[in-house]
Amino acid sequence: MERYQARVQNVLEAMECQGLEQMIVSDPSSIWYLTGVDVEPFERLFALYLRKNGGNILFLNKLFHVPQPPCETVWMTDTDDGVGMIAEKVDKTKPLGIDKEWPARFLLPLMQACPGMECRLASDCVDDARACKDETEQQLMRESSRINDQVMRRAAAFLKEGMTEREGEAYIRAQFKELGCEDVSFAPIVSFGANAADPHHMPDDTRLKAGDCIVLDIGGRRQRYCSDMTRTYFCKTADPKHAALHDLVRRANEAAEALVKPGVRLCDLDAAARDLIAAEGYGEYFTHRLGHFIGQTDHEKGDVSSANTAVAKEGMVFSIEPGIYLPGEFGARVEDLVLVTADGCEVLNQVEKHWSLIG
Amino acid sequence: MERYQARVQNVLEAMECQGLEQMIVSDPSSIWYLTGVDVEPFERLFALYLRKNGGNILFLNKLFHVPQPPCETVWMTDTDDGVGMIAEKVDKTKPLGIDKEWPARFLLPLMQACPGMECRLASDCVDDARACKDETEQQLMRESSRINDQVMRRAAAFLKEGMTEREGEAYIRAQFKELGCEDVSFAPIVSFGANAADPHHMPDDTRLKAGDCIVLDIGGRRQRYCSDMTRTYFCKTADPKHAALHDLVRRANEAAEALVKPGVRLCDLDAAARDLIAAEGYGEYFTHRLGHFIGQTDHEKGDVSSANTAVAKEGMVFSIEPGIYLPGEFGARVEDLVLVTADGCEVLNQVEKHWSLIG
Repeated sequence: MERYQARVQNVLEAMECQGLEQMIVSDPSSIWYLTGVDVEPFERLFALYLRKNGGNILFLNKLFHVPQPPCETVWMTDTDDGVGMIAEKVDKTKPLGIDKEWPARFLLPLMQACPGMECRLASDCVDDARACKDETEQQLMRESSRINDQVMRRAAAFLKEGMTEREGEAYIRAQFKELGCEDVSFAPIVSFGANAADPHHMPDDTRLKAGDCIVLDIGGRRQRYCSDMTRTYFCKTADPKHAALHDLVRRANEAAEALVKPGVRLCDLDAAARDLIAAEGYGEYFTHRLGHFIGQTDHEKGDVSSANTAVAKEGMVFSIEPGIYLPGEFGARVEDLVLVTADGCEVLNQVEKHWSLIG
Repeated sequence: MERYQARVQNVLEAMECQGLEQMIVSDPSSIWYLTGVDVEPFERLFALYLRKNGGNILFLNKLFHVPQPPCETVWMTDTDDGVGMIAEKVDKTKPLGIDKEWPARFLLPLMQACPGMECRLASDCVDDARACKDETEQQLMRESSRINDQVMRRAAAFLKEGMTEREGEAYIRAQFKELGCEDVSFAPIVSFGANAADPHHMPDDTRLKAGDCIVLDIGGRRQRYCSDMTRTYFCKTADPKHAALHDLVRRANEAAEALVKPGVRLCDLDAAARDLIAAEGYGEYFTHRLGHFIGQTDHEKGDVSSANTAVAKEGMVFSIEPGIYLPGEFGARVEDLVLVTADGCEVLNQVEKHWSLIG
C-alpha cells in the first residue's frame, strides 16, 4: 500500500543520511508502521530487514499469523537458528543499522556470526519518522484522546471518599474497555494524598479521605494509538498551600503549551515550565522531564527535557506534564497531549485543568 | 536477605564456569529475583552490575521508588548519560556478561564506550538459576495454578452458544482479578471453531455455535508468579473426527507428563508427544514446540522442544502442551504446568483433560 511505501521511503532516506544501506527493524510497532504486518512475537525472533535498493525481507516464525506478507519472507520454526538466517542475508561488508529495541539475545549472536561487520544504533531512522504523525495517525491520536477525556470525567465523578486507589483503577480500566479501547495504554495511576508524591505510585488499598489530593494519570489504546493525560483533584476540601501549588503546576503546563510550534526547541519548552516552578522555589520538587513522545506506545522515542535540543516539527505529538512532589505530603501533575500544527499546536485534551473538589 | 544472597551466589558460580567476573543483569524480573528491588523501568535504564567479589551496583533512575536499596547504587536522572555511568564502573579489561533482554539502545552505546571489551551473552547464568524454583517459588507457582483451575472451571460453565470470543475473554480476565491475581499472565486465548486452528488467535467477535471446538488458553499472575493452562471443549456436540483428535492430543500430553523426572532430556519429552501424534498421521499439524518454562513471566528461558537436549532438574516448572491444528477447520490443545520433583513431577493443574460438551 502507498502509505507503507511512503513510510519506508522516509526511513531509507534517513538511513542514507547516516551512510547506511541496510538495517534491522525489530520493534513490532515499527514493523507494523512500515508494512502493516501485525505480529506480537513475544520472545520469538521477528525482524524486518530494510535495504537501500528495496527487496526488504521479513523474518517470521511459522507460528505468526501473516496471511499475505507484503514483501519477501524468511519463515522459521522454534528450532531453527533464526539469527543465522539473518546472517545469511545481510551484507557483511557494510555497516548494519539496528533499532533500539533489539535485545542482546539476538544482537550479540548476530555480531558473532558476522565478525567485522559494524552494528550501529540507527533507531532514529525509524523513530524520527514515527515521531511525525501522518494524517491518518493524527486522526487516531485525536480519537484516542477524546475517549481519554470521557474516562477522566467519569473517573472524577466516580471517586468518593472512602474508596481505594485500586477501586478507582478498576473503574478506569473498565471505562476504557467500554468506550472501545483495546486496553489501557499504561497501568492507570490513581494516587491519593501523600502517595501522589511518588509520580509512579501504583494503586494500592489506600482509601480516599477529605483533603487528599488525587492524581489521575490515565490513557487508553484505541486502534493501536495511545492517549495519556493527568489531572489532579482534591477530595472535598483543598489545603490552600496545595491549591496554590496546583495553580503553579497548571500555569507551568499552560506556559509550555503556549510556546509549542514548529521550530521551538524541546528543551525550551521544558525550561518554560521549569523556570516558572523554580521561580516559586519548587524547582527541586519537579523531579522529571516535562514530557515524552507518544503514538503506538505510551512512551515513544523523544522527550521534552532539558537535554533535548531538537526542535518541534509539524505532526509531532508529545505530552506536557509538569508536576510538583512533596515527599510524604502531596503531589500534583497536569498533563495534556499536544499535536504540533503548522503554526502552533492543538491540545488534544479538553478536560478542565484547574483544580476542583470531588468525592 | 538470605534468600537473595543465595540466589546471587548461584549466579556468580555460573558466571565463574563461563570465565566471567562481571555481568550486567537488566531484566527487571531477574533484578527482583536477585535483590528484591521491584521496579518497572519502562524505557528507562535499570541494571544490576554483578561482580565476582561482591560489591554489586544497582543503576537506578531517580524516578524509581526504591526506599532501601540492598547494595551500592548509582542514581541518574532522565538527562544523565546512564550508559556512561555504567562504563565508568565496569572493568574494561575483562569480558562483560550481558543478559538476554538488554536492548540495543543501551548495549551498542556501552560497547562503543568500552572499545575492546568483549560483551558476551551470558543470560544463562541468571536464567538457569531462575528455571529451578526454590521452595518459596514452588508454593507460589502452585497457588497461581490453583486459581487458574478455578477460572477454567468458571469459564467452561460460563460460555454459551451465541456468545463471542471477546465476551469469554472479558469474563476470564474478570475472574482472575476477582480471585486475587494482579492480572492475567498473558492475553487469554478464547478460540471457537476454525479460529482454533491458529494457536495464537486473538479473541474477536466470532460467536460460539454448536459443534465448535473451544480452545481456552489462560493464565493469571499472582504475587508475581504465573499460571498457564489450556483445555479444549466442544459446544453441545462433538464431531467424531474432532473428538478423536482431542483424545490423541490428550494422550500425547499424558505420555509426555508420564516421563517427566530429573535427568530426562527435554527433547525426549517433546518426542514422546510428537511421535504419538505423528504415528496417527498428524505430525505436520502439531506446529509448535511441546512446552516452555514459566515463572515470573509466562514464557521464561527454556523450552521443551526437539532442539533442547538439556535435562530436567528438580524445581523446574514448564508447560506440556501438544496441539493439532487443521487450517480452516479445527484446533485442539491440552496444556498443564508440571513441577519437576525428586523422582517425577507434580502436575499443577487439576482440571479434567478429557473433552466434554459445554455451552
